[in-house]
Amino acid sequence: MNINAVIKEIHEEIKPLIGKGKVADYIPALANTDPNKFGMAVVTTDGEEFITGDVKSRFSIQSISKVYTLAQAFAIEGENIWRRAGREPSGNAFNSLVQLEHEQGFPRNPFINAGALVITDILLTRLNDPYADILQFIRTLAGNRTINYDKEIAQSERENGYRNAAMVNLLKSHNNIEGNVEEVLNLYFNHCSIKMNTLELARSFLFLANQGRQPSQTKAYLTKSQAKRLNALMLTCGTYDEAGDFAFRVGLPGKSGVGGGIAAIIPEKLSVAVWSPALNKKGNSLAGMQALELFTTKTGISVF
Amino acid sequence: MNINAVIKEIHEEIKPLIGKGKVADYIPALANTDPNKFGMAVVTTDGEEFITGDVKSRFSIQSISKVYTLAQAFAIEGENIWRRAGREPSGNAFNSLVQLEHEQGFPRNPFINAGALVITDILLTRLNDPYADILQFIRTLAGNRTINYDKEIAQSERENGYRNAAMVNLLKSHNNIEGNVEEVLNLYFNHCSIKMNTLELARSFLFLANQGRQPSQTKAYLTKSQAKRLNALMLTCGTYDEAGDFAFRVGLPGKSGVGGGIAAIIPEKLSVAVWSPALNKKGNSLAGMQALELFTTKTGISVF
Amino acid sequence: MNINAVIKEIHEEIKPLIGKGKVADYIPALANTDPNKFGMAVVTTDGEEFITGDVKSRFSIQSISKVYTLAQAFAIEGENIWRRAGREPSGNAFNSLVQLEHEQGFPRNPFINAGALVITDILLTRLNDPYADILQFIRTLAGNRTINYDKEIAQSERENGYRNAAMVNLLKSHNNIEGNVEEVLNLYFNHCSIKMNTLELARSFLFLANQGRQPSQTKAYLTKSQAKRLNALMLTCGTYDEAGDFAFRVGLPGKSGVGGGIAAIIPEKLSVAVWSPALNKKGNSLAGMQALELFTTKTGISVF
Amino acid sequence: MNINAVIKEIHEEIKPLIGKGKVADYIPALANTDPNKFGMAVVTTDGEEFITGDVKSRFSIQSISKVYTLAQAFAIEGENIWRRAGREPSGNAFNSLVQLEHEQGFPRNPFINAGALVITDILLTRLNDPYADILQFIRTLAGNRTINYDKEIAQSERENGYRNAAMVNLLKSHNNIEGNVEEVLNLYFNHCSIKMNTLELARSFLFLANQGRQPSQTKAYLTKSQAKRLNALMLTCGTYDEAGDFAFRVGLPGKSGVGGGIAAIIPEKLSVAVWSPALNKKGNSLAGMQALELFTTKTGISVF
Repeated sequence: MNINAVIKEIHEEIKPLIGKGKVADYIPALANTDPNKFGMAVVTTDGEEFITGDVKSRFSIQSISKVYTLAQAFAIEGENIWRRAGREPSGNAFNSLVQLEHEQGFPRNPFINAGALVITDILLTRLNDPYADILQFIRTLAGNRTINYDKEIAQSERENGYRNAAMVNLLKSHNNIEGNVEEVLNLYFNHCSIKMNTLELARSFLFLANQGRQPSQTKAYLTKSQAKRLNALMLTCGTYDEAGDFAFRVGLPGKSGVGGGIAAIIPEKLSVAVWSPALNKKGNSLAGMQALELFTTKTGISVF
Repeated sequence: MNINAVIKEIHEEIKPLIGKGKVADYIPALANTDPNKFGMAVVTTDGEEFITGDVKSRFSIQSISKVYTLAQAFAIEGENIWRRAGREPSGNAFNSLVQLEHEQGFPRNPFINAGALVITDILLTRLNDPYADILQFIRTLAGNRTINYDKEIAQSERENGYRNAAMVNLLKSHNNIEGNVEEVLNLYFNHCSIKMNTLELARSFLFLANQGRQPSQTKAYLTKSQAKRLNALMLTCGTYDEAGDFAFRVGLPGKSGVGGGIAAIIPEKLSVAVWSPALNKKGNSLAGMQALELFTTKTGISVF
Repeated sequence: MNINAVIKEIHEEIKPLIGKGKVADYIPALANTDPNKFGMAVVTTDGEEFITGDVKSRFSIQSISKVYTLAQAFAIEGENIWRRAGREPSGNAFNSLVQLEHEQGFPRNPFINAGALVITDILLTRLNDPYADILQFIRTLAGNRTINYDKEIAQSERENGYRNAAMVNLLKSHNNIEGNVEEVLNLYFNHCSIKMNTLELARSFLFLANQGRQPSQTKAYLTKSQAKRLNALMLTCGTYDEAGDFAFRVGLPGKSGVGGGIAAIIPEKLSVAVWSPALNKKGNSLAGMQALELFTTKTGISVF
Repeated sequence: MNINAVIKEIHEEIKPLIGKGKVADYIPALANTDPNKFGMAVVTTDGEEFITGDVKSRFSIQSISKVYTLAQAFAIEGENIWRRAGREPSGNAFNSLVQLEHEQGFPRNPFINAGALVITDILLTRLNDPYADILQFIRTLAGNRTINYDKEIAQSERENGYRNAAMVNLLKSHNNIEGNVEEVLNLYFNHCSIKMNTLELARSFLFLANQGRQPSQTKAYLTKSQAKRLNALMLTCGTYDEAGDFAFRVGLPGKSGVGGGIAAIIPEKLSVAVWSPALNKKGNSLAGMQALELFTTKTGISVF
């Protein structure tokens, strides 16, 4: 299989879709993104890298950051993490308060906003220097020390983030937040604001395809079992309320963000990232979804 | 009808129930209330007053304050008020976020917490000096200048009020709060903290039985139509998710608070207030509910 | 107060609204109704009758029949009736399954469809000859022996009544239906199909304004207390999910049907019925609602 | 990897769990099942078979039948099938009416009851002889002509199946059932009643691990893409509201039934079935779940 040829072919076929959909516009810093961008990167466990399009421009990773924070919290807490969040698809919008209220402040999974806020609270209260430690973890995974928070985006999110503020207060009312609600919100909006490019995204996810360890590094961030389980979570819960469709069409564990990025993995083989800022109605990159579907169709490999 | 005899008789019959139920204990300042208190006061539009039990001890009026703030906001905004809240029973718990989310941040009515927060926001943004003006309104209605906020209770509520904080943030995310969320919460918890005694409560509600005007005063706080409509709202929505039962058993427009007070009116005739701190499962004064049911049964007058 | 002049005046003022709205069209037999009809009748406890418009044409009373069946079941079962249905406003659409499922097959009140099906089941299993006995009760109240079921409408409702069939099956799964589901459905659709005219409707409701007894008859169908309580239920739950608004605008206990009829009472004084087939968005007669609001405004009497 | 040794080892380790949990008891025919049964069978795409425990006793496959009916309907309708059901996890109980009502009679996926009823309706209205054709399909997949409906179980289910009756009526009210509601229910309860043994179950699922074709047969029942997609659906939606946990712990596409059976596949490699009638709280075989978790742990192969 010639991955290089495959992704070039996909890039060509996908062109009519690039820019279709709608860039996230709930904060100015995201609304100004050029909808016509597209980048795709594949990194194999053998160390090969394949790219097409703009894989060097950094964009806000948004909810993809929830994978890194979950990995860190999972490594720290182990199975105790499931005392504070579940592992089931929510069947509701990612920012819904309904289910959270019905289920007494116990979020369905760590990828919906409520669950991610709980994970953020764990890191806030467990890490020595949460802001530095989260950033350090992502920089190490991606292999680039210049990756950073975008303070303007974080600030803008906070000023408009009344729904997340509602959620963290509801969690607190159910004693599922230990820290101060403002501090949890700030850390949350900050890690969502982190900017990375498509290639960095693909590189940083490789440990999940490789039993918890980056092939080029010695340290295992997660055990083999934990890595598999985090992948299972991404498959069932990683793409908002489109997770079923993503499994159906793409067939890979993956995580998307409203910045237009999607990162996915094929166990034991590779990680793949796409970026195109215009989103479909479910909040996932429209061209990105199609590119990943073509990727598993053309290569004939999915987890199924 | 000898009201004096009726309420004495009720007091006697009700004795076995006084102290039954459970005092609100979500904040220490309320939890310390003596559950064995009972007071009842009736004030007629003719100027007569009848009392039994402890009608002089002040207690936290809590949600009963929502009647005063609604009356003030209704007088200021008129029918525009219904652009920001509905007039339908909620069919859900008074502090539920579910319905508020389903209905896009438009509270069902001004007596559930979400609606009362919106009303508080109206007063916060319209009154010159909201804290002073609300207090002045209640003092004038009750005829006593020493009525005041209980700062300790207000502070304690704020420190535990994560669910209300969730609600006001959710309202803000739907653009149904104009003011600053912290300021709305503070004003809300303050007006809920106001302490009055049972007689003051009965006196202060008389304008609702008298077409919007206190019989002893010249100023009309509400038009006749507005007063009738506020009464309709109390009947359908005034006693949390027990409003149907209250209408069924008592048959009067009324409003309760978790401090154990209930105030109700019989149009053109009288206002009646009861106080007993131990609450039933729906959060209404257990002995108070029974006392009011006996009152309409014994006098044979209800709105039905 | 000259009631005759008042209702003539209302008829005149209401004319621009007659025909506005939408006739119920879910079954052909209802869809063919002339939307431009309007009738209004007032009957006092003193025996006076006032009419305007078409008060002689019969129409399908639909949900108004739930008042008669509830009265019969209440008389038979007494307070035991509340073991099988509640007394609280539903806060949901009248035909919603959601709440019924959440609350384990216990309908919120006897006026939503689920509750009315339970009441129908009570009559089916308690009355000797349910079809004859229900009809006899209504004929006696209205004083006309020609009132009858409309078999065509009943049949048509059954053929399209999959949602009600869903409801009765769900109730049965929670053991809140004793009879056979098909038989309950048939009796339900039949009593909803009954045709009456506006004057008959007003006459038949008078017992509710008169402590449970028709002024011209000796028999009390309900005790004074039961009559008051049924009125309370109509006020809080009688007009679908517009009950709060009906209380707010009209201020009377009343019950509406999708045939365009509404019947209401003023305790100790009178009953009033209106009919105009075109419905507002909530399923209540558009012109009828307005006529009743004008009636309480012009006469200055409501329960508040 | 010595599969034979692995499953014997699992059988040994699992023994303390066999009989733990609760046999489905909503109908007598299921309640009488011996809770202490356990069987496990693995069939590889290479034609090898491995068994342990009681793999010869037949039991009611219940919801596992939904995989066969979906496969048949998918083959007939192709992508049109998704006009009548979705592909997303429901996030609600498998027999919930709430979501179905909110989403206008469009079931979330074909494995919850509402979706399976729609699939049954497709087969009812498309197949020449639905009862014979469904049975023939399963017999061919399992390689045994004696597999049959259990008429007693089907009859018993129908007599108690008010909730499913509610569901099919609600679907019909939304025009998502073409056939007669009684006929749909009968066919549904019949295919759920089919009895198979553990080895037959494993054999019959092999086509899903083998791109839609049984290795020993020439005919492809599904295309490669369809088989993969059906597997994706099983992973995200196959085990009621425990699908996330199943993916997390077991990591395989699988489908369970309240008869205590679970069948799963590893793409390109094998199918595996377990049976143990005592269920956990989510309605899945307690020992069966654990056996499958041990299977992927010990062999080190899952889809992740």
